[in-house]
Amino acid sequence: MNQDTNKPQSTGGAGEICHLESDYNNGAHEAVLRHLIETNAERTQSYGDDRFSDQARQLIREACQAPEAQIWFLAGGTQTNATIIDCALQPYEGVLCADTAHINVHESGAVEFTGHKVIALPSHDGKLDADELRAWLDAYFADETAEHMVRPGMVYITFPTELGTLYSADELRTLHDICSAYGLLLYVDGARLAYGLAASSDVTLPLLSRLTDIFYIGGTKCGALCGEAVVFPKGNAPSHMLSRIKRHGALLAKSRVVGVQFQALFQPLGGVTHGEPAPTLYQTIGRQAVDLALRLRRLFVDRLGYTPYIDSPTNQQFYIIPNADLAALRRHIGFEVWCPVDATRTACRFVTSWATTEQDIAALEQLYT
Amino acid sequence: MNQDTNKPQSTGGAGEICHLESDYNNGAHEAVLRHLIETNAERTQSYGDDRFSDQARQLIREACQAPEAQIWFLAGGTQTNATIIDCALQPYEGVLCADTAHINVHESGAVEFTGHKVIALPSHDGKLDADELRAWLDAYFADETAEHMVRPGMVYITFPTELGTLYSADELRTLHDICSAYGLLLYVDGARLAYGLAASSDVTLPLLSRLTDIFYIGGTKCGALCGEAVVFPKGNAPSHMLSRIKRHGALLAKSRVVGVQFQALFQPLGGVTHGEPAPTLYQTIGRQAVDLALRLRRLFVDRLGYTPYIDSPTNQQFYIIPNADLAALRRHIGFEVWCPVDATRTACRFVTSWATTEQDIAALEQLYT
Amino acid sequence: MNQDTNKPQSTGGAGEICHLESDYNNGAHEAVLRHLIETNAERTQSYGDDRFSDQARQLIREACQAPEAQIWFLAGGTQTNATIIDCALQPYEGVLCADTAHINVHESGAVEFTGHKVIALPSHDGKLDADELRAWLDAYFADETAEHMVRPGMVYITFPTELGTLYSADELRTLHDICSAYGLLLYVDGARLAYGLAASSDVTLPLLSRLTDIFYIGGTKCGALCGEAVVFPKGNAPSHMLSRIKRHGALLAKSRVVGVQFQALFQPLGGVTHGEPAPTLYQTIGRQAVDLALRLRRLFVDRLGYTPYIDSPTNQQFYIIPNADLAALRRHIGFEVWCPVDATRTACRFVTSWATTEQDIAALEQLYT
Amino acid sequence: MNQDTNKPQSTGGAGEICHLESDYNNGAHEAVLRHLIETNAERTQSYGDDRFSDQARQLIREACQAPEAQIWFLAGGTQTNATIIDCALQPYEGVLCADTAHINVHESGAVEFTGHKVIALPSHDGKLDADELRAWLDAYFADETAEHMVRPGMVYITFPTELGTLYSADELRTLHDICSAYGLLLYVDGARLAYGLAASSDVTLPLLSRLTDIFYIGGTKCGALCGEAVVFPKGNAPSHMLSRIKRHGALLAKSRVVGVQFQALFQPLGGVTHGEPAPTLYQTIGRQAVDLALRLRRLFVDRLGYTPYIDSPTNQQFYIIPNADLAALRRHIGFEVWCPVDATRTACRFVTSWATTEQDIAALEQLYT
Repeated sequence: MNQDTNKPQSTGGAGEICHLESDYNNGAHEAVLRHLIETNAERTQSYGDDRFSDQARQLIREACQAPEAQIWFLAGGTQTNATIIDCALQPYEGVLCADTAHINVHESGAVEFTGHKVIALPSHDGKLDADELRAWLDAYFADETAEHMVRPGMVYITFPTELGTLYSADELRTLHDICSAYGLLLYVDGARLAYGLAASSDVTLPLLSRLTDIFYIGGTKCGALCGEAVVFPKGNAPSHMLSRIKRHGALLAKSRVVGVQFQALFQPLGGVTHGEPAPTLYQTIGRQAVDLALRLRRLFVDRLGYTPYIDSPTNQQFYIIPNADLAALRRHIGFEVWCPVDATRTACRFVTSWATTEQDIAALEQLYT
Repeated sequence: MNQDTNKPQSTGGAGEICHLESDYNNGAHEAVLRHLIETNAERTQSYGDDRFSDQARQLIREACQAPEAQIWFLAGGTQTNATIIDCALQPYEGVLCADTAHINVHESGAVEFTGHKVIALPSHDGKLDADELRAWLDAYFADETAEHMVRPGMVYITFPTELGTLYSADELRTLHDICSAYGLLLYVDGARLAYGLAASSDVTLPLLSRLTDIFYIGGTKCGALCGEAVVFPKGNAPSHMLSRIKRHGALLAKSRVVGVQFQALFQPLGGVTHGEPAPTLYQTIGRQAVDLALRLRRLFVDRLGYTPYIDSPTNQQFYIIPNADLAALRRHIGFEVWCPVDATRTACRFVTSWATTEQDIAALEQLYT
Repeated sequence: MNQDTNKPQSTGGAGEICHLESDYNNGAHEAVLRHLIETNAERTQSYGDDRFSDQARQLIREACQAPEAQIWFLAGGTQTNATIIDCALQPYEGVLCADTAHINVHESGAVEFTGHKVIALPSHDGKLDADELRAWLDAYFADETAEHMVRPGMVYITFPTELGTLYSADELRTLHDICSAYGLLLYVDGARLAYGLAASSDVTLPLLSRLTDIFYIGGTKCGALCGEAVVFPKGNAPSHMLSRIKRHGALLAKSRVVGVQFQALFQPLGGVTHGEPAPTLYQTIGRQAVDLALRLRRLFVDRLGYTPYIDSPTNQQFYIIPNADLAALRRHIGFEVWCPVDATRTACRFVTSWATTEQDIAALEQLYT
Repeated sequence: MNQDTNKPQSTGGAGEICHLESDYNNGAHEAVLRHLIETNAERTQSYGDDRFSDQARQLIREACQAPEAQIWFLAGGTQTNATIIDCALQPYEGVLCADTAHINVHESGAVEFTGHKVIALPSHDGKLDADELRAWLDAYFADETAEHMVRPGMVYITFPTELGTLYSADELRTLHDICSAYGLLLYVDGARLAYGLAASSDVTLPLLSRLTDIFYIGGTKCGALCGEAVVFPKGNAPSHMLSRIKRHGALLAKSRVVGVQFQALFQPLGGVTHGEPAPTLYQTIGRQAVDLALRLRRLFVDRLGYTPYIDSPTNQQFYIIPNADLAALRRHIGFEVWCPVDATRTACRFVTSWATTEQDIAALEQLYT
């Protein structure tokens, strides 16, 4: 394989744009692509029974320290959310989330298409407030007309959130306890999980596996061409998942296409050293993107003097940019306008990813020295 | 790229099995995979707006001689059927098909999940009979209680059918005329379209584009890792297709993953010679698999004396095998038991694909000389 | 109440038409209407909690000898079928029925609207054949691709069928045993149950309660203005039925409107004599309509020499009428053309109901002496 | 008919409770019941084709001065909302409403069951604010990701609202203009329409017919046993409504049961005097309940000194009651606790209806002189 054609094109050269628009504009991480090539000639079973999917499942179980985990591979994030929420809920149940949640805003009503209400609570920088959640649940269960209202069956959170923020382990524990107390499932949308895990000081896959009922490990935004891995960490998947998934149109005939990619993402890299398990590609991808995001942060805050719009520790960074600076910035950086802040300033989003290189950021640093 | 690792493993060696179980057990055709590699480093737009998808659409429009065609790329066959049928039908309409149709048998009720009845008519070797269809429609529209019954809105056919058979151009014209007369859409499931087109003497993409309202060009079973291309040949797609598709969970963020593959499949190969348009990879794939299926047919019928169970001109071949022969056959060929014929004989299915090689079949021929 | 305005108008006078078109063209049975009047001024709870519904439930439990039965009142038959089938099935399950079944033919796809496949087996005069059912189930559960097919979750039968025929107690027992063996629910659509019970020699409400999982007692066609009573005889209703029913739009605020009517229908009439429980209005209604149907049968077969099209013992009678006779017959009888039999004869349906009077039939008898 | 048994029981006697809990705890208005009795013996067509439904439609068209209006009779309010919203929207569209709207709170997710998102905006005493609505729509249509969000297809309002408040004619005109400008339907849930029209100074059925696309005239809470009349005032009903309604389980076989009641409700009473059209029973019912609600208001505010919780001009009245007074009040009045106001006071709801009598309120006035 030609390294030159397969490496994400460096954007750090003079006059080049450093692309920070989003984390799904590149192809696949080189190692993921290479594994697709290496395994291509092998014949396999289909519909999830292929050996690559099996091996990927085993690697994920190990990474999660969840030997009982059941794992399903789906093609994309909205598909995963709609399919899994519908499969896990009773027909008369709805799903609670922050009003900024992806399922509430940006999935064209895919959850409602399956017949379930999305019940939005206030968002605090993308996060649910545990006290507000508890108060809402208390009010619901105290209401004499509760049976005429949609029963809450699940709490949906994103990790990291749509605004790049994170729940701490303590916050997750509190949500877990609330869900247990009220009989709800806790489900984590991990479209950008690699970046969340890398940025968090205390949330890990094993912790997620203990504290949640279902979560998915995002592939599309974290180095894969496509694919998400849904984890039922306690072997708690509903029965007949294959039928349920196929009925949602979400069962891939050539399941290997996702299995192979997750095998690459969760294969420990290099050798085990000093008793520490070797990091996986998934961890490396997250680590690098977050490190570069933090360098970007220092550049924006310390050197350029911009104020964060939201205090995000992950690969999505949000800064308040004077409108007067926007055009100049655009000459060197590709980014997304988030929303106007006031008449003279705009909040903008800058996203690093597995495809962002050290050179990309170094070039920017040099530019703004 | 290492040819040795990427070429489908030859199964023709002594003692090796020639795998004819199905056409979705291999990875991608080498040229498709190569194009994924070549394009990997390029940044693109997402959600269908990437330039690879655009170029693939243009190539398909040309192959179809349908400059107005609207084309959407989805991930898999069941997803495509359920999404497109739901999008094209009015809510109160159902879809007519042969009782052997994939949507009626093997999609876990994905069409019904979207709220539409699948109305099954008798299958004749996998095909609808035009007279029976017309009689059914006459009876429906003459029925005073028709409004209490599910209104037919679409005729669904597979090309080739689940049994490997084909509609002729004349038969398609008749179905088209019936659909026009009764105000129904004609939709063709082309999961194995490459093989159908190669085997047909008179059905082509331009003809399909003229005679049908919607059809999909199957990628998963015809050389791609995943992906199907839905064609609305007359620019007749319903409005807001992006929302509709996303609502079904069928919109890929990295749409390029399918776009790139179809670009490879529909790129004309070699140079134009003698005024004839150069064949596409999609045509070559179909041609080779059908040629090998016909060699297999000569071997089974002429040399081994087996009777066809269904007279299929395409890549799915069905023969009646004496039970006494099954074990011996299995030592050299991988195949699928279809159904018992009587106490001593079994119908079996043998499927060639883009991954079947000339050497595979030659080795079998040598074995049974 | 003025008897003259409230009694169904006799059709037996000279020159009058005896209306046998269907059993839902009249208002309510006089006693049902009277009970609506008597109870009108009383204030009650709503949404099923009113005392009339409670009393009706208790009367039905007694009539069924099913003290654990849970009972829900809905407004109409299609609503009941779609709501109950959806509530009782798992999302990935479908419902088996005869191809003539109401849910398969005449409910505008209401069951499919809720996401479930209706799986039609051959109809034998409206009935399922137990051996064919067992064979279908054996084939399904033996199929390696079963998870890709809609899983059967319920057997739906009508009693009496759409063609007026009945299952015997033995036949019901066989269906019950099959359903138990394969883990399916047995559900009986009793839109015309009063007439079926009256005509059957051995099927009773207690027997239905023992042999089935769910059935509904039809009100609309059996003397009520509207309303059907769904019975879960073993206290086996799914949880949160109020929410489930409301979600289907099927929860009546003034639930009393159906409760009062079923209280009237199931109130034992007169005094208990000789230890026999007094019949209910529901039984009387069934008895009378079936007796008149049998008199009609003697008239048609013995006196007029017509051949039954289907051998129905219930209130729906089907005869083969020479086309030459149709016009003359229409001068005295209102009926429905069912279907042509051949070039010179037509099958016609004649339906008695609670609103058919002894005088109606006597007048016909006199006419054709 | 015996007046004594059919008149709502007076609650004004010494020691009796004046029942103001809700407006659906009684049977039917005497005149509605009487018409059911009068018409009971007549045979009619079914499924909406009966002559009573036809006549009721004509009366409603006249009351609405909407000769082109198409009218459908359904059984209840939640059923009507879910069925009509689903029928009128495109599959990918959602419905905008105040967050207090019945469809958002108290219908067990019936709208979402049909696949559509309910998009809640802030409620201002139960009403939408036109400026907020316009701002939301501007933001939606300006959003580059709009196609990934649920497209607004309808504005749903209640008249009167769940809190008893009313939109003025000017406010309706503004909503109409906004809906026209943005291509949305304006739909009015008139579960309590009789009371709203009686209380409004300028909103009438003809005005509603001009300014809205769809509205329903509530029967269940306004004098009928059951039933709502859906009006498409400009003949703008979607095609195949019978099939659409039946598919939702909402088509009554004995459609007369609702038709007869609406015929009674919309039959002009007495003779035309001085060129004024005679009022209908529906108007009389609304007028009386609102007059009594206003007398109640004077009693509560002027004599008892309670503060309104919400300023409602309709039959639902809300007052802030010191907790110390609750027990004493309950000895004479049946009412519903709405919500706590603070540690010592509670908001309570008092509802008059067609069944509330002048004597009921007079007795209360005497009690609190």
